[in-house]
Amino acid sequence: MVKEKITGLTVTDIRFPTSLGHHGSDAMHTDPDYSAAYVILETDASDGIKGYGLTFTLGRGTEVVVCAIKALSRHVVGRALEDIVNNFRGFYRELSSDGQLRWIGPEKGVVQLATAAVLNAVWDLWAKKEGKPLWKLLVDMTPEQLVSCIDFRYITDALTEEEALEQYMLKNGYPAYTTSCAWLGYPDDQLKKLCTDALKEGWTRFKVKVGADLQDDARRCKLIRDLIGPENKLMLDANQRWEVNEAISWVKELAVFKPIWIEEPTSPDDILGHAAISKALAPLGIGVATGEQCHNRVMFKQFLQAHALQYLQIDSCRLGSVNENLSVLLMAKKYNIPVCPHAGGVGLCELVQHLIIFDYISVSGSLENRMCEYVDHLHEHFKYPVAIQNASYMPPKDPGYSTEMKPESVSQYQFPDGEIWQKLVREGKIEI
Amino acid sequence: MVKEKITGLTVTDIRFPTSLGHHGSDAMHTDPDYSAAYVILETDASDGIKGYGLTFTLGRGTEVVVCAIKALSRHVVGRALEDIVNNFRGFYRELSSDGQLRWIGPEKGVVQLATAAVLNAVWDLWAKKEGKPLWKLLVDMTPEQLVSCIDFRYITDALTEEEALEQYMLKNGYPAYTTSCAWLGYPDDQLKKLCTDALKEGWTRFKVKVGADLQDDARRCKLIRDLIGPENKLMLDANQRWEVNEAISWVKELAVFKPIWIEEPTSPDDILGHAAISKALAPLGIGVATGEQCHNRVMFKQFLQAHALQYLQIDSCRLGSVNENLSVLLMAKKYNIPVCPHAGGVGLCELVQHLIIFDYISVSGSLENRMCEYVDHLHEHFKYPVAIQNASYMPPKDPGYSTEMKPESVSQYQFPDGEIWQKLVREGKIEI
Repeated sequence: MVKEKITGLTVTDIRFPTSLGHHGSDAMHTDPDYSAAYVILETDASDGIKGYGLTFTLGRGTEVVVCAIKALSRHVVGRALEDIVNNFRGFYRELSSDGQLRWIGPEKGVVQLATAAVLNAVWDLWAKKEGKPLWKLLVDMTPEQLVSCIDFRYITDALTEEEALEQYMLKNGYPAYTTSCAWLGYPDDQLKKLCTDALKEGWTRFKVKVGADLQDDARRCKLIRDLIGPENKLMLDANQRWEVNEAISWVKELAVFKPIWIEEPTSPDDILGHAAISKALAPLGIGVATGEQCHNRVMFKQFLQAHALQYLQIDSCRLGSVNENLSVLLMAKKYNIPVCPHAGGVGLCELVQHLIIFDYISVSGSLENRMCEYVDHLHEHFKYPVAIQNASYMPPKDPGYSTEMKPESVSQYQFPDGEIWQKLVREGKIEI
Repeated sequence: MVKEKITGLTVTDIRFPTSLGHHGSDAMHTDPDYSAAYVILETDASDGIKGYGLTFTLGRGTEVVVCAIKALSRHVVGRALEDIVNNFRGFYRELSSDGQLRWIGPEKGVVQLATAAVLNAVWDLWAKKEGKPLWKLLVDMTPEQLVSCIDFRYITDALTEEEALEQYMLKNGYPAYTTSCAWLGYPDDQLKKLCTDALKEGWTRFKVKVGADLQDDARRCKLIRDLIGPENKLMLDANQRWEVNEAISWVKELAVFKPIWIEEPTSPDDILGHAAISKALAPLGIGVATGEQCHNRVMFKQFLQAHALQYLQIDSCRLGSVNENLSVLLMAKKYNIPVCPHAGGVGLCELVQHLIIFDYISVSGSLENRMCEYVDHLHEHFKYPVAIQNASYMPPKDPGYSTEMKPESVSQYQFPDGEIWQKLVREGKIEI
């Protein structure tokens, strides 16, 4: 019997002009156009099955990721899915360790985002082939099968394959928090209205963007804390705006508003800096959260070893897809640190819900101090959008990794030739 | 008077088919084609002055860096050189902190390599404008001018602007070491001959590639140590091949050959791993050297804070050009760690000699434990090639950053349309 092969890879630069409404704005990213490099894997299967994958970007630079994905396609096209998943660790290493291409990473930045997009499509294809949502595919694997998807290179001093097998347990919606109310560019009235609406919808956990101006931050934090009351949870997010010592003194000024975490206080590369901030803020009951720009398992390993974070925020599109996220979930379990994923970008909620539901059922078995970010944004472009009920992610039921976008969205938002972008150009609202 | 402007940026994908002869091969990069993304900045100056810059790559993926350089060109084209250098810190931050583009880095991987290429061209243009070789431009700057080129974001907990001003001192060729003799893919006979020739030329410091097979490494180390005798220096380079504990046990087996350093023992991102290896090998008199794949000042800051390296290897084309290398040279001075640059790739020797000569004259003032890598390779393609005399780099005298390539080399080695590549295709030696 002939094995079904991946016969082609297409990649599209899709951008949504979100900067026009200040959605997604923070102290370091003032004008993001939420975007995605979107991959479709074609196969020669008789049922015409395809795999869809993406990585999230902020607009400019998406074309660079598209270029990197094309550079990776030689490792994927012509291969049989069965051969890939039967030696997934080997395939992962082949992608991440291409002897010429790894120089421009390695395992970081553009090439890691490209790896995520390609492997996300492979995982979607596999889950569809098995007729299961991705989280169920993962939950149903034996520990040995699952561990065989992980490349343990450079993390064996923190977690070995044998230890990984011990990090399992078996044990329903997953708690979510909202970032939709308090983007840095929103005026106070908009913030108040969004927050009031969110409370009515049952939200109990709220994140506010800080870091540009201390007085402004204090006013916004007070406004939100007064609205949500003392029993609901508040989180702060500085998006890497500060120096190490500045982060400590700034957050101390905001401690009166009782936030449970400060997210991304400084450079995402500064493990020792995050450790110093963690130590200084622990007496105030404020933890450090980070990870959305943490580029690989080796960095997460050190954040855990150095006690540099108290909330670990994986990202489904920055790490090397499911494979590398599995290694991080298992290390977090060993170090007893709750995983609270980053989401909100294009497709990030759709993808990461699978990982966090798997984490709950098969790894952590706990909801304590755990929640997954949610932004009510751009879900209408996905064929299988997230379902939020009572401020919780409801487990997806459709086969695959929820990565597939609607063809009309792909066509309209393709950059720069899609209708939406061409219309903005004609109206003089943007230049390309 | 009208300020002279940068009127255009062109970028070329230049590749040399070095993999055909196993030049540059190591435990992780088995088939590199030494390559460069090569930038030319055109100006409207009456003398037709241009700036040339590049970053080094290993072949595949160079097109991705080219794409990223094009994405950065909007920040450069149309600007006056005078305005850029008068607020160089601001310009650096503009490039590294583009609110949309930084997501696909930040300050790492492809975008950081692209930043290096563009800024290397700006520095070459500036030095040519001043009629000085780059190292002399730097040496002649006041400490205040020099420090104003550095972005201190995320490193102020290790080095402030005020402290940086104190790291200066003022005080001829710079000692070099050779990596040309012992690439991993070379057979023993070739290695013996190259080593014997190098000794005759006056070389006293030799680096050998290790990490693929312990018995093989021991044989090669013995061969070289026997040839060079006990008085000459031997360095080992594993190119990130090992786990942390594996590195320690492997190097202990090779300690009998008295190497002074082990270079890149594990993941370039693993600061705490390098610290553990440093601690374990210190009693044997073996230091840890790393940095060629260290992507920014924040990572180097932590390597210094964690005592994770004993020899710091800057790279002229991975960090954000001269600006970011300055911050690392000053931190190394504060932490009393010798800088021994990475070189050998396309143009890396040409560029980094300027930085290390500046470091000696104006920052470290010492040659103790200091030397700069040298590989006798591809220099013929540069207009101002390095001059090595008696195993030392002789200070360059021509204006600029020695970045300019010969037009005929650019044309012949352009990928994939240059003559050399088309000929290889016609001869059936490669496929494109």
